[in-house]
This record gives sequence, structure tokens and C-alpha cells, in this order.
Amino acid sequence: MSLLAIGSVAFDALETPYGKTDKIIGGAGTYISLSASYFKTPINLVAVVGEDFPQEYIELLQNKGVDTTGLQIKKGEKSFFWSGRYHNNMNSRDTLVTELNVLGTFDPIVPAEYQDCQYLMLGNLTPAVQKTVIDRLENRPKLIAMDTMNFWMDIAMDDLKTVLKMVDVLCINDEEARQLSGDYSLRTASKTIMAMGPKTLIIKKGEHGALLFQGDKMFFCPALPLEEVFDPTGAGDTFVGGFIGYLAKTDDISFENMKRAIVYGSAMASFCVEKFGTERLLDLSEEELTARVAEFKDLAGFDV
Amino acid sequence: MSLLAIGSVAFDALETPYGKTDKIIGGAGTYISLSASYFKTPINLVAVVGEDFPQEYIELLQNKGVDTTGLQIKKGEKSFFWSGRYHNNMNSRDTLVTELNVLGTFDPIVPAEYQDCQYLMLGNLTPAVQKTVIDRLENRPKLIAMDTMNFWMDIAMDDLKTVLKMVDVLCINDEEARQLSGDYSLRTASKTIMAMGPKTLIIKKGEHGALLFQGDKMFFCPALPLEEVFDPTGAGDTFVGGFIGYLAKTDDISFENMKRAIVYGSAMASFCVEKFGTERLLDLSEEELTARVAEFKDLAGFDV
Repeated sequence: MSLLAIGSVAFDALETPYGKTDKIIGGAGTYISLSASYFKTPINLVAVVGEDFPQEYIELLQNKGVDTTGLQIKKGEKSFFWSGRYHNNMNSRDTLVTELNVLGTFDPIVPAEYQDCQYLMLGNLTPAVQKTVIDRLENRPKLIAMDTMNFWMDIAMDDLKTVLKMVDVLCINDEEARQLSGDYSLRTASKTIMAMGPKTLIIKKGEHGALLFQGDKMFFCPALPLEEVFDPTGAGDTFVGGFIGYLAKTDDISFENMKRAIVYGSAMASFCVEKFGTERLLDLSEEELTARVAEFKDLAGFDV
Repeated sequence: MSLLAIGSVAFDALETPYGKTDKIIGGAGTYISLSASYFKTPINLVAVVGEDFPQEYIELLQNKGVDTTGLQIKKGEKSFFWSGRYHNNMNSRDTLVTELNVLGTFDPIVPAEYQDCQYLMLGNLTPAVQKTVIDRLENRPKLIAMDTMNFWMDIAMDDLKTVLKMVDVLCINDEEARQLSGDYSLRTASKTIMAMGPKTLIIKKGEHGALLFQGDKMFFCPALPLEEVFDPTGAGDTFVGGFIGYLAKTDDISFENMKRAIVYGSAMASFCVEKFGTERLLDLSEEELTARVAEFKDLAGFDV
């Protein structure tokens, strides 16, 4: 079923204990699309870049099955740029540079050929932009999932709450769930947040895995313990990209199938962190993905 | 099969955001024994208390099937006492008082009737005392599991490394695994630590669950997300008590059965934190335990 994703397409410059990169392709929209492309193509992408964005990066997306009709290229402007340095434990990072550039005035235009949208993934952007995309779709998608972050809770909580009422699935991390709900217990927080709108809540816990909540149902998927985490950038977006891609491919939004989607998303994220930036998402084979999902089954499976 | 446990039997005074207690029964040996008693009795306990330790607490243990022949009562001396205050998030705590008392000179005498020991659980104590118990057993148990803590890594690392060579299963938390191995990645740490002696390693991650490693095999059991954690005291000891109790009951030390033992240990720990101190471990029903284990199965189970 048709899949529409919005999110930043940008430059990242990364520094981890393993090395550093110049400006490379990054952004939530990029990671979501690349990850989802292993399950379902085309991915219809709505995003914006500046004139400085290399044609080769656009072709990189196209080669993975991303439809870039909705990718606006702003003449005379610069692409969104983020630079960060990870600490030794990879769990915390310093933002060195954030240049909003084209993202500051992003008007998300939905091309006519994207209107038939069954699965909508709203990557992390200002809540107002996320809402605009929903408003511009003539028919409501079968499933709307959104990602967001603490920054919007700090400066645009009212807008965020408006969008929350319009979506089916919210995906945030544990600290964001606590901030949004005011509850420390994630189980209590899940109830508070689901009462704000989304019937399904995913709480990402990084190296500790991810929780899925829907009504009274709960599911937990561990993160795969890895010997080396090379670069955590984009892991959360890759996770949610795999989640929505798997749902769009299988066209089944039951809780049982969402559990599978969480496992596939976790598998994709486990690949993402093995190399710098998007590198590992460019050359994955189906065999590698199947084997990785089997590792998750071994890791979490027991028989009592 | 016969189960021998050593560990502190002590007074705790606890303060959590939910309230505070006077001196109540606590200690690793207490939590291990009470938890294991749901699987296998008698638990042969080797421990020491002072003259101040109430007879009613000893009877409390006896009523749960704990054999207290090996519980030394030191005339004119005082029991080990620990007092702590938990912070709002329950993940960190301040130690207010530690009075070693009888534990400072503890000589772990193993009664003759405890010699037929198949499963030995060495609760957290000085490594030298743990070693003495192993040395005093005429025949090596089928399985020796030990718990320890960062404190002994700081002040008695050589002794600790000696004991590590003698045991089958080590159970520590994630920070302790990092300290002991010098590795940040828990997967890498597991290899480093297993090379020190124990063929099986359990890494407890508190609210984030527990990992089991053996050779190249890995298993992860989540913690059950709870609406309220009332008092985390003893959760780790309760976990390992359930683990060893389940193994002793089933007398099967295969990796597959250790996975089940981890799930049962996690279920016991999830009960422990629901009330102050040992309270919740005193009145559990078999039906409650079975239902709780089913919750873990729902939480972690998926079909891909």
C-alpha cells in the first residue's frame, strides 16, 4: 500500500570515538525512507533541500526506490545542517551546529500523485508542518504515525497536542514520554499519552529496546546487544522507517503485526549503527535482514 | 535437588517516595531464600545475625521452608544493618547507614547436613567468604552461582578473580559488568568476563531487564513495566533467588532451561518491588506467579 513520508533531508557532520565525517547525507526523512525501502517501494517523500544538496545524494535516494517528486530544491538556499559529537558511551552527544536554513520556512507541498496515501509517516519536524501534511491529504490515510522530540514539547506543546489528536501511532523515546506525560513510570505514561490521541504508542529506549503500547496490550522488543556501536545517528528514524515500511508492505495494522513491525524496525536500527551515517543502509541484503530478525527471535524467545 | 544459599540476613531501614520503614528484615540471604522458596524447599541457609535479631523473623524464614541450622546467632553482637533512601526515580539511592556488625567477622560454617549440595547460591558477600563456602563443601555442587558488587571490585579484586574461576554462573548489573571487564559494550564485556571463569553470565539491567550469556548464546528478558515501583530493595536478590530456585526445582542446567529460570526470576523480582521490603514475597500464590509469567510471555513473545 502506498507510503508517504515527510522529514528532513539534510547534511550531517558526525564525530564519534571511531572517527569523524565531513558533511554527509542525513536527516530523518532520509533514514526513514532508506529503511522503509527494504520493505515497500516507492516511498513518496515530501521534504526540502537547498541548492547545495548534491545530485548524487538525490540519486542515492532514487536508486533505493524513493520517489523525489515531493522533494523541493530551493534555489539560492542552503540545506538543513546538523553537526554533533558523541561521547564515549554513545548514549549522549553534544550538538555542535544546527543550521535550520531551508527547514525554517518549509511548506510541505503534497504532489497530486501522492494523494493516494494509505500509510503516512510524519518524521520529526515542527508539529505545525506535520499537521499541514495531514490537512492537505484529501482522504485520511489508513494509518498515520508520527515521530517528535522534546524540543517541540518545550516550545510548541499546544501545536503538538493538536497533531497528537490526529494520529494513530506516536513514536518517542523514554525521556520524551516522561516529559510529555509528566509520569515517571512508562506504563502510566503510556496511558496518559494514549489519552491525548494516539491509540498506539511506541517508546524507544535506545540500547534498552522499545516498548509498544495499545490499550491494555504491551510488547517489548530488545535492542540487539552489539560488540561495537559505530555511530548511533539515525537509529531512531531507521527504526520507525522499518516499522512503517513493514506495515505498508503487509497492509495489516493488527497489534500482532505491529509487534512484527517493531522487530523489523529494531533489526534495521541494529544495522544502521554498525557504520557511519546511512552507509550500512545502502547495501543490505535480504539474507542479512532475515538472519538478523532470526537473531532477535533467538534473543527474546523462550518457552514456559 | 538440594539448594544451599549464603548471604546476609539483616535489618534494613528504607525510605522511598511512598513512605519509610523502621528496621525490617532484609539482606541478600533473606531475599534469595524467600524467592527460591517458591520453587524448592528446604533452602539450606548459611548466614549470621546478632542477638538482636527477632525470633519472629527467624520463624518467618522457617515458615517459608528455610532451614536455619546454618544461621549463626552471635551472643552479645548486633546484626548487619543497612539504611537507604531512594530518589524519586527509584533508580538511584543514598546509603544512609551501613553497620557491618556480625558480618565483619563472619565465618561461614557449613553444617554437616548441608554437605549434600547440588545447587549453591553465593549471595553478595566478601569474595573470601564466598570462597570459604566452596572450599568447605566436600563435593563440588552441580552448579555454583554467585552474585557480587562493585564494592568488592574496588577493594578485593584479586580475591574476586579467584572466586570467579570457581563458579559456573556470575550475576552482576550492567555497571558492574563494565567495571569488571573494562568494556563498555555489554556483549564484549560478556566475553571478557566469561574468560575469567564463569561459563554463564547474567547481566541485570534493573528496569531494563536482564541478559543471559553463555558461549555465543544470548538471551534477553525484559523487566515488566509496572505502574508503580514501591520499593526496589532486594529486587536483584529476589531475581537470582528465583533463578537458582527454578534450576534446583527442575534440575536442568541447559541454556534453554536457564532462559526459563531468568523469566521466573524476573517475575519474582516484579512482585518484590510492589511492596516494602520482603512483604510481597510472603504471601504470593502459585496462581499469581503463573499469571505473572504469562504476562512476561505476552510482553516478549512475537511470531515472525
